[in-house]
Amino acid sequence: MRSIESQCQAVREAFDDTPALSTKIKNQILLGIADALIECTPFILSENLKDIQRGQAAGLDVAMIDRLTLTAERIIGIADGVRIVAGLEDPIGEEMSAWTVEKSGLSLQKIRVPIGVIGMIYEARPNVTVDAATLCFKTGNAVVLRGSSSAFESNRALVEVMHDVMQAHDVTRDLIQLLDNTSREGVDTFVKLNQYLHLVIPRGGASLIKHVIQTATVPSIETGAGNCHIYVDREANLKKAIPIIVNAKIQRPSVCNALETVIIHEKIAGDFLPALAKELESKGVTLKGDDAARAIVPTIFPAVEDDWALEFLNLTLAVKIVSSLGEAEAHIHRYGTKHTEVILTEDARRADHFVKTVDAAAVGVNVSTRFTDGGEFGFGAEIGISTQMLHARGPMGLPELTSYKYIMKGDYLVRK
Amino acid sequence: MRSIESQCQAVREAFDDTPALSTKIKNQILLGIADALIECTPFILSENLKDIQRGQAAGLDVAMIDRLTLTAERIIGIADGVRIVAGLEDPIGEEMSAWTVEKSGLSLQKIRVPIGVIGMIYEARPNVTVDAATLCFKTGNAVVLRGSSSAFESNRALVEVMHDVMQAHDVTRDLIQLLDNTSREGVDTFVKLNQYLHLVIPRGGASLIKHVIQTATVPSIETGAGNCHIYVDREANLKKAIPIIVNAKIQRPSVCNALETVIIHEKIAGDFLPALAKELESKGVTLKGDDAARAIVPTIFPAVEDDWALEFLNLTLAVKIVSSLGEAEAHIHRYGTKHTEVILTEDARRADHFVKTVDAAAVGVNVSTRFTDGGEFGFGAEIGISTQMLHARGPMGLPELTSYKYIMKGDYLVRK
Repeated sequence: MRSIESQCQAVREAFDDTPALSTKIKNQILLGIADALIECTPFILSENLKDIQRGQAAGLDVAMIDRLTLTAERIIGIADGVRIVAGLEDPIGEEMSAWTVEKSGLSLQKIRVPIGVIGMIYEARPNVTVDAATLCFKTGNAVVLRGSSSAFESNRALVEVMHDVMQAHDVTRDLIQLLDNTSREGVDTFVKLNQYLHLVIPRGGASLIKHVIQTATVPSIETGAGNCHIYVDREANLKKAIPIIVNAKIQRPSVCNALETVIIHEKIAGDFLPALAKELESKGVTLKGDDAARAIVPTIFPAVEDDWALEFLNLTLAVKIVSSLGEAEAHIHRYGTKHTEVILTEDARRADHFVKTVDAAAVGVNVSTRFTDGGEFGFGAEIGISTQMLHARGPMGLPELTSYKYIMKGDYLVRK
Repeated sequence: MRSIESQCQAVREAFDDTPALSTKIKNQILLGIADALIECTPFILSENLKDIQRGQAAGLDVAMIDRLTLTAERIIGIADGVRIVAGLEDPIGEEMSAWTVEKSGLSLQKIRVPIGVIGMIYEARPNVTVDAATLCFKTGNAVVLRGSSSAFESNRALVEVMHDVMQAHDVTRDLIQLLDNTSREGVDTFVKLNQYLHLVIPRGGASLIKHVIQTATVPSIETGAGNCHIYVDREANLKKAIPIIVNAKIQRPSVCNALETVIIHEKIAGDFLPALAKELESKGVTLKGDDAARAIVPTIFPAVEDDWALEFLNLTLAVKIVSSLGEAEAHIHRYGTKHTEVILTEDARRADHFVKTVDAAAVGVNVSTRFTDGGEFGFGAEIGISTQMLHARGPMGLPELTSYKYIMKGDYLVRK
């Protein structure tokens, strides 16, 4: 087993020593990877099976085994994702702005460049291995993948497929590396390797992300945790509100942009909540509400304080009744995680108040929370959803994986 | 003495509870601060004198006392800086981009917002107190200032002047706060207050910055350290090269964009170095060179390995002779701090190679290193020069003190 330090050092050296690859060669390699993933499906599935069997023997639950499992269809999906990345515009080298400073004659250009070596820390989803590697590769970054030990054979197979394509194009495989050491303690070593890594991105559960943020000395981007709310205003179209809430809660309950709490204005709660509850309960959703909600729909379970702060990530939904827009905003401020917050209303001024007051990566008006997503934003792909203020916020596409440098030119200019 | 936690909590609450101030009121307050600084000059100087006397008693060296010292003229300079900030465009609320996603009809806007509460950590330069506070205020951020204990009375006086103006405009003074606790241990507490601070920016010497980067759990921006090089290519105009090197080295040797090493192509070194050395030595510069340089100009002192990595920050300049452009680039890669790197050449292709190969916040062609500066870039002001890849790189002006949020709108849109 290679050490974390030696692997990261090799990647940093590869990044430093490899001249910028042309867009053409990067796209050829990406398309080659997509083809190779399909061709190598039997190999990938047989390696994946080892992980699945080990997971089953270790008693992993059904949901975890499902996340871990690759199928021919899922591999087609992963390959299609790589083709999409190949088709996206290459941000590297883009002139972001250019100007001349009058007083001195200094000519300036701001040019997009890669960030450098990116450390990805993620859980047992083998698709992230290919997603993250190809997004980093397209943006001229090198990547060190620290996947879950439970997906190690799958990840190794996927990286091997990518390496073969890179080598066939005479590009060093060290631009994409998978850590051999997937121990828990290894994460702490990894996120402190400032001499090799420019950035670490944790993707996964809240505890993983919190641990990385607290431990890392390498700059990091906080992703993911989403305690998302929809506020049904007294001026909402109640009929149209129900499908949005159903979509936000049940389309994919386990993801960060799923709805966790619905907040309802008291003026319309008496009409709205029974219809909403009926629809949701018929779809298997468990409701947990405050006293006012339970007074309207007695089948709602009582919510405890912790429920307001919890990302259920399953078919549970908290219900809160408020007497004003301000109270809804205050509740979101107190319990939200600044991921996605939505108001349903027909009143443009009240929508505007919500949009200005509520601080979140994405604030929505009359839309499902599920739209906070790189694909839905039209970015083509995303490496994660940032919930911090620095560098990038919300869905992170290709430009969010870049930095820039200034180029100063002059005719032998000295500063006055 | 208020605790660090209680002061930061108060600032965070003020930030959370204060609706966004209009550009007009922000500018009125900034202009009011500029006027008040001038009016209160006697008060500020008398408080500053306490710090100076304490510093002298403690045996601070002349350079440190100079940095600490305010004069009527310096206060005019600080006030002028605030007027410039007042005159700059307000980035907050700017629509950075807007688009509609065809497949869903989702309408998106990307809007500039403040970052939040910014912690500034700096050394004994009282002007930074006003610079940082007014830049943060203009961009809608709140700021916690952690100045040096040796400038405490000066900083307190300056903050008091700012507070009086804010209060006269009914704006809470908690948006700008100076920490009472300026102990060394206090820094470690400060940079871990993730619940109150969104960002910390250390400004000062390399050891302070390194300590903050290593200790902080709050996101931080690394500023400042600049081991800057000028490479005199074999195709440079040698006559014009000398004034650039003189400007870069001696205009202000103590700052981060000052020149520390000149690298000279061996083909022109025999002609160029004697003339350069003569000019620099006549201006009091001490040269430290490699063997090749000393073979050409015997008065040059021998350089030791550490000299190549050192920011002298005084009138010392290292001299290195290379046999190729690639060797110059490799030397910069090895010893540079990715701040500012310059090539002097008449050959556009060689300039282009240098610009593409050298990784630094600012890469220059035929200009002095001293141009890497918010003012020289036309930003009007700067809060520091970032040497990291994330969020901002190079001189940080107003836009670099902002984040953004997405606003999603639709006609009761659900995700397919």
